[in-house]
Amino acid sequence: MKARFALFCILMSPVLFAAPDDDLPVVDADRLNATLDHMKSFGRNDAGGSDRVAYSEHNRAALEYLSSLMKEANLAPRMDVAGNLVGRREGKIDGLAPVVIGSHIDTVPNGGHYDGIVGVMAGIEVARTLYESGVELDHPLEVIVWSNEEGGKNGSRSYAGSVAERELDLPGLGDKTLGDGMKFLGGHPDRLHENAKTPGDIAAYVELHVEQGAILDREGISIGVVEGIVGIRRWNITVDGFANHAGTTPMDQRQDAMLVAALVIADIRRIILSEPGRQVATVGRLQAFPGAPNVIPGKVVFSLEMRDLDMDKIGRLSDRIFASATSIAEENDTRISFEQFYLSPAAITDDSIKTLVNEAADTLELSSMYMPSGAGHDAQSLKDIAPIGMIFVPSRDGVSHAPSEFTSEQEITDGANVLLRTVAGMDNLFK
Amino acid sequence: MKARFALFCILMSPVLFAAPDDDLPVVDADRLNATLDHMKSFGRNDAGGSDRVAYSEHNRAALEYLSSLMKEANLAPRMDVAGNLVGRREGKIDGLAPVVIGSHIDTVPNGGHYDGIVGVMAGIEVARTLYESGVELDHPLEVIVWSNEEGGKNGSRSYAGSVAERELDLPGLGDKTLGDGMKFLGGHPDRLHENAKTPGDIAAYVELHVEQGAILDREGISIGVVEGIVGIRRWNITVDGFANHAGTTPMDQRQDAMLVAALVIADIRRIILSEPGRQVATVGRLQAFPGAPNVIPGKVVFSLEMRDLDMDKIGRLSDRIFASATSIAEENDTRISFEQFYLSPAAITDDSIKTLVNEAADTLELSSMYMPSGAGHDAQSLKDIAPIGMIFVPSRDGVSHAPSEFTSEQEITDGANVLLRTVAGMDNLFK
Repeated sequence: MKARFALFCILMSPVLFAAPDDDLPVVDADRLNATLDHMKSFGRNDAGGSDRVAYSEHNRAALEYLSSLMKEANLAPRMDVAGNLVGRREGKIDGLAPVVIGSHIDTVPNGGHYDGIVGVMAGIEVARTLYESGVELDHPLEVIVWSNEEGGKNGSRSYAGSVAERELDLPGLGDKTLGDGMKFLGGHPDRLHENAKTPGDIAAYVELHVEQGAILDREGISIGVVEGIVGIRRWNITVDGFANHAGTTPMDQRQDAMLVAALVIADIRRIILSEPGRQVATVGRLQAFPGAPNVIPGKVVFSLEMRDLDMDKIGRLSDRIFASATSIAEENDTRISFEQFYLSPAAITDDSIKTLVNEAADTLELSSMYMPSGAGHDAQSLKDIAPIGMIFVPSRDGVSHAPSEFTSEQEITDGANVLLRTVAGMDNLFK
Repeated sequence: MKARFALFCILMSPVLFAAPDDDLPVVDADRLNATLDHMKSFGRNDAGGSDRVAYSEHNRAALEYLSSLMKEANLAPRMDVAGNLVGRREGKIDGLAPVVIGSHIDTVPNGGHYDGIVGVMAGIEVARTLYESGVELDHPLEVIVWSNEEGGKNGSRSYAGSVAERELDLPGLGDKTLGDGMKFLGGHPDRLHENAKTPGDIAAYVELHVEQGAILDREGISIGVVEGIVGIRRWNITVDGFANHAGTTPMDQRQDAMLVAALVIADIRRIILSEPGRQVATVGRLQAFPGAPNVIPGKVVFSLEMRDLDMDKIGRLSDRIFASATSIAEENDTRISFEQFYLSPAAITDDSIKTLVNEAADTLELSSMYMPSGAGHDAQSLKDIAPIGMIFVPSRDGVSHAPSEFTSEQEITDGANVLLRTVAGMDNLFK
């Protein structure tokens, strides 16, 4: 069946990809997927995954390849101070801020070949298709390969001026600090402030990415119109009880931090599910002290992460969770405390870009749906600087950050064509 | 108030310790507590605790001191093949097996000065008091200082012939393997089989120990008549779910191993409390994989320990726990498995020894209560060889294995006097 369906697609593709009734071209699907395929060679490991972590030799070699592709697309490449590779084609109208397409090519250790990469390859292909088709934009067009998305988004965050100096000394996912890594790519971390943008410096920003959940894949939908990148809050929750002998301490004399942690974790789910919506909460890490089978834990520390597009909702639900947890702790003769250690505000996408993406999908006769991004992306770094938009394409089984990450050539091509039409629409809209 | 109460005790002590209306003497309270105090010097650390771990220099030096004390008590000391120090006084009737008093002097690292030590010092004092008072027993009397109670009970377990050869290569709590440790004390681990006893080799066994719960201390009771040492079973429980992105995976699509672990831990308590009795269950260790705040745990492994005097009850309750846990796992789209990694059968004390202990307390006008031992003791190693008995004295706040371990001189003296009368009773009874 699959083979027959593929044959059907090949036979039908001239129809499916015929340019709609306007001047806009469609991308070269073969070329796009061939360049994406070539990218796999930079850091492919024995597991079939990618070890192209930020600031590695593989990362640098891949950027050299991308730089040559940019030239073919009439994008003038330059390395900025944060190690971002920026390819730029000037526009027809002088003085306009650029329309920017961004994504990344660095992977987690033993990651996949699609997360981030699809967006970069599609961005360059869109620029090349526009160039070769003789389509000139009013705005300059920039395609940016952000550095180190996976290890801290410091490439894109340098545009927001939010990379603290002390971060440069932090270890990256490879063998270098962030500062040394930027230098390795040709950046100048001591001049990071030169990257900082203000509203107006970028006309509009769009990013194509694989969806890291399985919603599009499961529903068989081609295009996700991203409503925003969810906000994230993370806390360490500490239960203080009393460590005691597991044999000699009767059940009614215990101050069992593990029991309280268990009751609270179950209660978190109850509260999260008590309101409609797509909010999620996760307890991913838990440590018990002293952590021996024959000692009642005197202390348990666990993480709580909550995500939603609506920060107020996160605040309201977390307040309920903490109030309930405090009661549970008191009932069990323990104390509980909550320390937030991470906050990433929600980044809502621009309404007109959402409309452009949706219309592009409609024009191309592709199915689409509105959805939040549960994962973080470089786009969020630019939320206070420019109107932002994101386009999702399916990822098989929602897998990401693993060698088995996969998006089909057809899905990638569809996404690139939506990106092209969205960019053209942004060029018209954001003057 | 405390000082006035202590003064009252001192003034009243001649009355409290007057020999009851039979021939049996009472121990020399000052001497007993002075020898116990001297023992603290062998391994005392800066925290005020004891680092007299098994097979250390401190352990060996303390045994030399005890050997000299044994001689003063007319106990002929010898080191057996397992590194147990055995002091023996012959009895009046030839051919009888010995009545044995046993305990230990090794501590956990940074342990206390009472756990085990009280039993050894009281045992030697009882022998000395009997000797100096001209009381001759029909049976030989042996006082045994078991080696390495805290690190595996291999001293007492050599009497049961249950020390496997491979254990000798295991690391002890100090810097030596168990085999090298025994040699260091003068033992011969290659001849461990010589220690193995069969029923009849020991007439009866008794052990005085601090209670490691807080029951006697809280209730203000002087003597615990130990009904037995609880059986212990320990399992590793593994929940297999699916590790997934904490942002992109909706709540209803999760296979969250942490949530299931939490529900099961709460359920364990419900089931344990659903039957009357003193059974206890503890989850002391839990590991989540991969263990990151932003990843739904795909796997959680946690320990379950259950203790009770009744092994059938442990079996029945654990069956209920596992059946319920399996349902919880299935309801949440995960799998759960249970692997027992430790089993220590319950050791029930001899009825007539319990009666002797209780009567001794009554005669001495000391309050007493029947109770299980929730902690393990050397006595359990001998359960299939000889009738065993145990006497508990209070431990302040139930603390053990810590520098703050404390039992008062009065409580220790009371325990020693109960021990003396119990030993005399055993001498009459077990011919």
